[in-house]
Amino acid sequence: MERLRKQIEFIHEIDKLKYIQRKTKLFRSNRHENDAEHSWHLAMMVMVLTEHSNAPIDILKVLKMVLLHDIVEIDAGDTFLYDTSKSHDNWNEEFAAAERIFGLLPNDQEEECIAVWKEFEAGESNEAKFAKAIDRLQPVLQNLSNGGGTWTEFSVKFETVIKKINGIQKGSNTLWDYTEEMIDQGLRNGDFKL
Amino acid sequence: MERLRKQIEFIHEIDKLKYIQRKTKLFRSNRHENDAEHSWHLAMMVMVLTEHSNAPIDILKVLKMVLLHDIVEIDAGDTFLYDTSKSHDNWNEEFAAAERIFGLLPNDQEEECIAVWKEFEAGESNEAKFAKAIDRLQPVLQNLSNGGGTWTEFSVKFETVIKKINGIQKGSNTLWDYTEEMIDQGLRNGDFKL
Repeated sequence: MERLRKQIEFIHEIDKLKYIQRKTKLFRSNRHENDAEHSWHLAMMVMVLTEHSNAPIDILKVLKMVLLHDIVEIDAGDTFLYDTSKSHDNWNEEFAAAERIFGLLPNDQEEECIAVWKEFEAGESNEAKFAKAIDRLQPVLQNLSNGGGTWTEFSVKFETVIKKINGIQKGSNTLWDYTEEMIDQGLRNGDFKL
Repeated sequence: MERLRKQIEFIHEIDKLKYIQRKTKLFRSNRHENDAEHSWHLAMMVMVLTEHSNAPIDILKVLKMVLLHDIVEIDAGDTFLYDTSKSHDNWNEEFAAAERIFGLLPNDQEEECIAVWKEFEAGESNEAKFAKAIDRLQPVLQNLSNGGGTWTEFSVKFETVIKKINGIQKGSNTLWDYTEEMIDQGLRNGDFKL
């Protein structure tokens, strides 16, 4: 029962992810998305977009990655992709968060969760490359539906957008081609300016 | 590209799950939970509680079930477990929703999603029994943390609570024993009355 008690404590704690607000907004909406909603949406995207991965992937591993990748933000907060004032180098803060939060679980599960999270962060395995591609693609789709969304709101330049999101192609050339085409089309249509 | 276009349309559409509000509230909170947050939380619970399943299960299948089980509520709305005015027999409405929403996907994926959703709804396979146990357990944990939550708010009787949630034991005797013990403890402590 001690294992179960720890697992339930973890389940309580991660409820807080529902309060972590992202900069991006829901599709065709002015309502900010939270990290729990975001993580669910990524998991659904993984389910339907797996065939576009550049390499064969273990879909269960990718699902675990996207489901837990933002849990560290309960302590460390959301890091906005286009934030120029923050160095994005809050690894120590995020690692402490991972140890505290996953540390609520029994040891073997703590180790597994931290390993999955580190593998995602490293972005080197085929699974991590695809998970990161999906994590980059989702806010692009949201911004495209919101007249440029955070790109417009924070006056992000075209080159910066491309630099920040072109990691999509490491996970999927197909999704990257699609992303470039959609951004070009949005610019041509005058939906937004970059 | 036609496959990808359909997949992206589906990804847009299911964003609406973030607006479907449940009766239950977040842990120790007055804020209602939405279906996307709920689905994410169930997926995390599946990840950490699988060992308590009565039978061996395919965790990937269970994850798919909990991630997509509420998508039909985009059209059919949330059905409250303790609603006495509604018959809970809105299968036709939910089936039409499944056909419309999963029907946005390429045919093979539509068929897979509908099959997974039907398997969950039928509650007969080991995977569906465990997924349903987790779907029942999560609001119990929320109510326990909220002084009885929806049980108190809607004056639900003890017998009704037990009748509605005892399906947990079909998926997990361990989780059911824990649930009964926690409810008894809450009653003994005077946290709530049933």
